[in-house]
Amino acid sequence: MAVCAEFTIDGWLAALYFLHSFMALIWTVQLGQRSYPIRIGRGVLSDIGRKEDFRWEGSRALIVSDSNVAPLYAQTVQQTLDHCGCRTRTAILPAGETSKSAENLFGLYREALAAGLDRKGWVLALGGGVVGDLAGFLAGTWLRGVPFLQIPTSLLAMVDSSVGGKTGVNLPEGKNLVGVFNQPEGVFADLACLDTLPDRERRCGLAEIVKTAAIADESLFRMLETSVESLGNSRSGIWEDLVLRCCQIKAEVVAADERELDRRAILNFGHTLGHALEAVVGYGQLLHGEAISLGMVFAARLSQRILGFQKEEVDRLRDLLFRLGLPVQVPAVAWTTVQNAMRLDKKVESGSPRFVLLSRLGEAERGHLIPDAVLAEVWHACGK
Amino acid sequence: MAVCAEFTIDGWLAALYFLHSFMALIWTVQLGQRSYPIRIGRGVLSDIGRKEDFRWEGSRALIVSDSNVAPLYAQTVQQTLDHCGCRTRTAILPAGETSKSAENLFGLYREALAAGLDRKGWVLALGGGVVGDLAGFLAGTWLRGVPFLQIPTSLLAMVDSSVGGKTGVNLPEGKNLVGVFNQPEGVFADLACLDTLPDRERRCGLAEIVKTAAIADESLFRMLETSVESLGNSRSGIWEDLVLRCCQIKAEVVAADERELDRRAILNFGHTLGHALEAVVGYGQLLHGEAISLGMVFAARLSQRILGFQKEEVDRLRDLLFRLGLPVQVPAVAWTTVQNAMRLDKKVESGSPRFVLLSRLGEAERGHLIPDAVLAEVWHACGK
Repeated sequence: MAVCAEFTIDGWLAALYFLHSFMALIWTVQLGQRSYPIRIGRGVLSDIGRKEDFRWEGSRALIVSDSNVAPLYAQTVQQTLDHCGCRTRTAILPAGETSKSAENLFGLYREALAAGLDRKGWVLALGGGVVGDLAGFLAGTWLRGVPFLQIPTSLLAMVDSSVGGKTGVNLPEGKNLVGVFNQPEGVFADLACLDTLPDRERRCGLAEIVKTAAIADESLFRMLETSVESLGNSRSGIWEDLVLRCCQIKAEVVAADERELDRRAILNFGHTLGHALEAVVGYGQLLHGEAISLGMVFAARLSQRILGFQKEEVDRLRDLLFRLGLPVQVPAVAWTTVQNAMRLDKKVESGSPRFVLLSRLGEAERGHLIPDAVLAEVWHACGK
Repeated sequence: MAVCAEFTIDGWLAALYFLHSFMALIWTVQLGQRSYPIRIGRGVLSDIGRKEDFRWEGSRALIVSDSNVAPLYAQTVQQTLDHCGCRTRTAILPAGETSKSAENLFGLYREALAAGLDRKGWVLALGGGVVGDLAGFLAGTWLRGVPFLQIPTSLLAMVDSSVGGKTGVNLPEGKNLVGVFNQPEGVFADLACLDTLPDRERRCGLAEIVKTAAIADESLFRMLETSVESLGNSRSGIWEDLVLRCCQIKAEVVAADERELDRRAILNFGHTLGHALEAVVGYGQLLHGEAISLGMVFAARLSQRILGFQKEEVDRLRDLLFRLGLPVQVPAVAWTTVQNAMRLDKKVESGSPRFVLLSRLGEAERGHLIPDAVLAEVWHACGK
């Protein structure tokens, strides 16, 4: 009887999985031997343990999460892995950018040891960009590399940081100064996680979506302009399309230039100033998406000066960010402080920061060196 | 006149380089896009700045060395780079295995920052295995990866650790628990560095040469048996052949299996017990090569029990190590302590350490799981 009942439950589960596979979108990032699937949809968290995807049986996994996300979703992930014979341990970081520190990294190494993670053990990054970056670095460096999954729960992580294989750790002197390129075995973006995402975090994710549209897809930009209302509702049908489109664009750019030797740098639109502002104002005070919003307004004005990017398009970008509730006016910080922070950015070559500029909405150029006087002038214009 | 004189000096230098290129051996490690040359010979340190090999002009380099090696050789390396327009900074670690720590790694990150190392900046590992492992990890993770050179000055580093791309950092809980696979752009093995190498260090290098012979090349093993006297003289002609042969064997094994999924594991002959002994007795008390010597005697006896490896060959291995001045009798440490340390080794899968065994001299098999009772029995036999 017991066997029969088990069979029935398994049968039902299989049928549910089968139905579910029609509801979730699957997209493959093409990177040769390191290609990996992205699953996007409501409820995909419960798909992680699907036996046909990965070899869980008899393995161990360290779930890395943070104090906001773990209480909401860690149990679901633990259960799906328990179900297929994988022993899990969960490490919980304090929420926020300040957690991306060397101290927390070494705490995670101790957790990996406590979890008994051997070379076939898994790291699962369940959370936003901070968790993904730190857990991805952990997976890339523990025993010289163990497999890992990105399970982004914030909008920003779904549309940007979980795809592309960048990982990083902050030093007191600057963001992401330490890191490796490390591709995950898969990405699971569960749109139901957006229901519990604070508004400010949602807006930060929207900043990266605007960035993606601005550098690569004008039709996506127009779609955002006409959908500002729907973007306030986490259950809107628009998210599946938005997340998929952003992942596709990022995957295309990354596939062409995985190690950011060339074209991939366009993904840094708004980031040269953005990273510096985060460092100067203080991680956590100004969130990443907010800093990028300011960086994009700055870079758009630079584009106007240097590349003849239209004034109307600068305004369209600024207006969209403003309507999405993102900051567009730079804070009252001394320019020299910001400038010094920019010189520490890892994209700097031979002491001078470089900028991604727009030639028009949907088209970006990388690697622009800009005279200090122009930078200072545009900075002051952005404060008004 | 000045121009003419400069031309003449450059002309002489070019002629010297030309002659020199006949004196140094060059061997290429074949790893597709990541192939790199190894130069072996007396005086190759001064070749590093040869403009045709790498782009030094206008770049910056951080030379990582230790307190024994830097006073002897750092200036030569600095000068050859100065000569071709590369600005260098030298970071000096205390000599010894205890330097391979997280604290020193983060010290090196600060040095990289102080050196102004951007993405095109170089890391140069000038020293033994500890310097190579730590500097290689630094290069692999600074700004998500910058180019680096291995400049091994110890015999052990020349014949083993500088080739193959393994890097690592020790945690208090175990050796090399943190690391990345990171191939250098080139290896420069200057045999003149052997003149200043302490005897104990030379013997440690010989242990890895014996290992290489035992797992892959019986003729090399015989050559060692008949050359014990010459191996006491750093200026003997034998070193060029020995270093080249070891690099070739290692390069072949690594090319077949870069990430140690399979065959590469045979390079760990003697290392399962060896690493555990280092941890238990204390890094620095028992040097790596000494621990590997003990590990090889242990593994040879296991091979005799499990694979029918001949008793005479166990004796040949033990005798050679003994004649080379290496320890062959395990220290008075409780077996349970050693056993627990082995379980922490990163080669462990699902809680049980695996051993590389010999079927005969020159032929190894990886991945042997051995019953605890046999391990304990052989351990006690190795103490007599």
